[in-house]
Amino acid sequence: MKPYVEMTKEDLAAEITQLKKEYSDVQAHGLALDMSRGKPCKEQLDLSMGLMDVLNSSSDLYTDEGIDCRNYGGLIGIEEARVLIGDMMENNPNDIIIYGNSSLNIMYDTVSRAYTHGILGNTPWCKLEKVKFLCPVPGYDRHFKITEFFGIDMITVPMTPDGPDMDIVEKLVSSDEAIKGIWCVPKYSNPQGYSYSDETVRRFARLKPAAKDFRIFWDNAYGIHHLYDHQQDYLIEILAECKRAGNPDMVYKFASTSKITFPGSGIAALATSPNNMEDIKAQLCNQTIGHDKVNQLRHVRFFGDIHGMVEHMKKHADILRPKFEMVEEIFDKNLSGLGIGTWTKPLGGYFISFDTLPGCAKAVVKRAKKAGVVMTAAGATYPYGKDPLDSNIRVAPTFPCLEDLEKAASLFTLCVKLVSAEKIYAEKCREEA
Amino acid sequence: MKPYVEMTKEDLAAEITQLKKEYSDVQAHGLALDMSRGKPCKEQLDLSMGLMDVLNSSSDLYTDEGIDCRNYGGLIGIEEARVLIGDMMENNPNDIIIYGNSSLNIMYDTVSRAYTHGILGNTPWCKLEKVKFLCPVPGYDRHFKITEFFGIDMITVPMTPDGPDMDIVEKLVSSDEAIKGIWCVPKYSNPQGYSYSDETVRRFARLKPAAKDFRIFWDNAYGIHHLYDHQQDYLIEILAECKRAGNPDMVYKFASTSKITFPGSGIAALATSPNNMEDIKAQLCNQTIGHDKVNQLRHVRFFGDIHGMVEHMKKHADILRPKFEMVEEIFDKNLSGLGIGTWTKPLGGYFISFDTLPGCAKAVVKRAKKAGVVMTAAGATYPYGKDPLDSNIRVAPTFPCLEDLEKAASLFTLCVKLVSAEKIYAEKCREEA
Repeated sequence: MKPYVEMTKEDLAAEITQLKKEYSDVQAHGLALDMSRGKPCKEQLDLSMGLMDVLNSSSDLYTDEGIDCRNYGGLIGIEEARVLIGDMMENNPNDIIIYGNSSLNIMYDTVSRAYTHGILGNTPWCKLEKVKFLCPVPGYDRHFKITEFFGIDMITVPMTPDGPDMDIVEKLVSSDEAIKGIWCVPKYSNPQGYSYSDETVRRFARLKPAAKDFRIFWDNAYGIHHLYDHQQDYLIEILAECKRAGNPDMVYKFASTSKITFPGSGIAALATSPNNMEDIKAQLCNQTIGHDKVNQLRHVRFFGDIHGMVEHMKKHADILRPKFEMVEEIFDKNLSGLGIGTWTKPLGGYFISFDTLPGCAKAVVKRAKKAGVVMTAAGATYPYGKDPLDSNIRVAPTFPCLEDLEKAASLFTLCVKLVSAEKIYAEKCREEA
Repeated sequence: MKPYVEMTKEDLAAEITQLKKEYSDVQAHGLALDMSRGKPCKEQLDLSMGLMDVLNSSSDLYTDEGIDCRNYGGLIGIEEARVLIGDMMENNPNDIIIYGNSSLNIMYDTVSRAYTHGILGNTPWCKLEKVKFLCPVPGYDRHFKITEFFGIDMITVPMTPDGPDMDIVEKLVSSDEAIKGIWCVPKYSNPQGYSYSDETVRRFARLKPAAKDFRIFWDNAYGIHHLYDHQQDYLIEILAECKRAGNPDMVYKFASTSKITFPGSGIAALATSPNNMEDIKAQLCNQTIGHDKVNQLRHVRFFGDIHGMVEHMKKHADILRPKFEMVEEIFDKNLSGLGIGTWTKPLGGYFISFDTLPGCAKAVVKRAKKAGVVMTAAGATYPYGKDPLDSNIRVAPTFPCLEDLEKAASLFTLCVKLVSAEKIYAEKCREEA
């Protein structure tokens, strides 16, 4: 089939009639499917049921150092967990604090602490006229919600397959003291699945921020979440690179086991420099006596070591790979050559990013919803939910089963075709008029 | 023995010589004991080992509503846990949010949210010239640390066996708009073990604060932590009383299972009015997708219901009662009639509050430490660690075993006697001079 834009008005009208019929047929099926959130599916959760067995009433719940995990204490987490998560994050266990179940919560608390108390003796952000963050777009909606909640101005920076446009990042960061941070999902990014190139990470580590308290919020959410065993993205480790570049304190790095074991009941962690660690611990000791050490121990006993975790991730990949490949296949089959959409083909992570023709994303998501398929809201990948081109849609293929996913992805492509055809048809009418 | 103050100088000198000898003898034993923190002992933790068995890899991890506890979601906690904790806190499950493992963390977050965003549309505290809290003293050091960390002025209010001096509380709260809160441990208070009288709770509920965003921080940490089955303190439920008094939004109430199951791995909760709930949820949804639902389910399955929890608490009481009674016995035996100290005899909670003669607490704690017994730092029960009379010492009898506790309590009384005798002797010398 040729690109819609090259079709005659008459052919397009016929195509629209045909697509509407197909759409009605699907609507009649009363689908109720969800491709909106990056949630693991039941089969993935089942992979970690062994986590429920590693500790029982006969278990020794003491750490190697002799700490009773059941009692109070352990502000930064037990040594064994910091070693395991250190291997997962590629950081020194001494540079790691293990928190509760949510890395999002750590990010919120990190922004909140900077807001209430400042970073390393700098003015608390609440006392400043203006605080700004750079937001590579499209990006992760929950990041943007945190900065929005704190009244922080969000400046968008375009993403490329190599990461954020570093020319823009460098220029802004070095010239504006009000810019205090940037949100990054450096590996298998949300939503594109892009991984930052070596050049990008090198340039991040060598930023010359105007603000002393500028920090990179490095959310390495998908660090070991590969889809393929033999084709994986590697990322330069940012803390080490910043240290080498003479900027040791410039990064807060986040990760969790949410998409490794159980999203609600995993362990989350922050890695950062010794200076930042001391700064954080001076606050954290007022906030809690310690996080859940039994769950830390549970994770350590379940995985044994990083190799155990990597082997475990292969099982996740075996479940997710067919889902990503099916969606990509359906997109290829139904949309290739039509010139009405582009999409990413990630090697890991939880999402595929889809770009419609400008001005079509909202209409596509609405159409899909009316036929029973919930997509992430159009615009969600932009600060304030506003995609200036109205073209980006985040596709989350992990949660539905293959059978549902096939239906959902097919319906989605149908909606893309219908909305695009109608748009192009309307344009052709206007051009004639 | 007669009161030290009535003894002659010569008799006192002899007593001091004798006490010093005893002290040296104990020092020679090289004790290494700790009566400083309110930590459950190993035997108490062992009571909850069944918690490790209630969920295993064959368990159904879905809630009655069909929610998979392993996955994302559940911002306010699972229904079953809110019912159980509702019964524990004597609140409607709909008025409860289940958080992570630490009620201290909830309190910190509650102050932090008021500081960054304000309460129910009122000015964020960070934008105010001055914020003050009332602090009944002696009280809980970690409460005071939170308010100190946020630069909040702390105004002390004397505690009585019926609760804080309500004449003072009423006068201050109604006259000063900068007063935004009061820290309360209303039942088996930390450190005295006092429970607020009905009259006190009634007066709390009827406060007429000058500040619209004044809140009572009601830390009901020991709500079901009785030492005796047939002699228990009952407390008027504060949310209900505030509602009846026309002040429904005036309280944040906190509790946890930290001293019911495992301190590091329990579940914590906040109960408050529907208005406050909405206010909090609007913030919380930016901070997390939800807390650990598997651990919530684990607690529900372990206890079954509130009766199960109450029966469980009797086992704690059986372990703790002899410890409290032994300490009180040793205090009685060694100190009664000497006029050098008073102490509380609580029916529940985790502490005994000891008051030395003015100016002796620091010296007693120092002496005890030199002989190998760590007490809570003198002054810790006051804001900024400053006890104006230098007389209050918090005694925490729960963690050591009975044998150690006997040694520790005896050494403590020896230190009280020695420091007091020396002080009185010095005063007598001064009087003569």
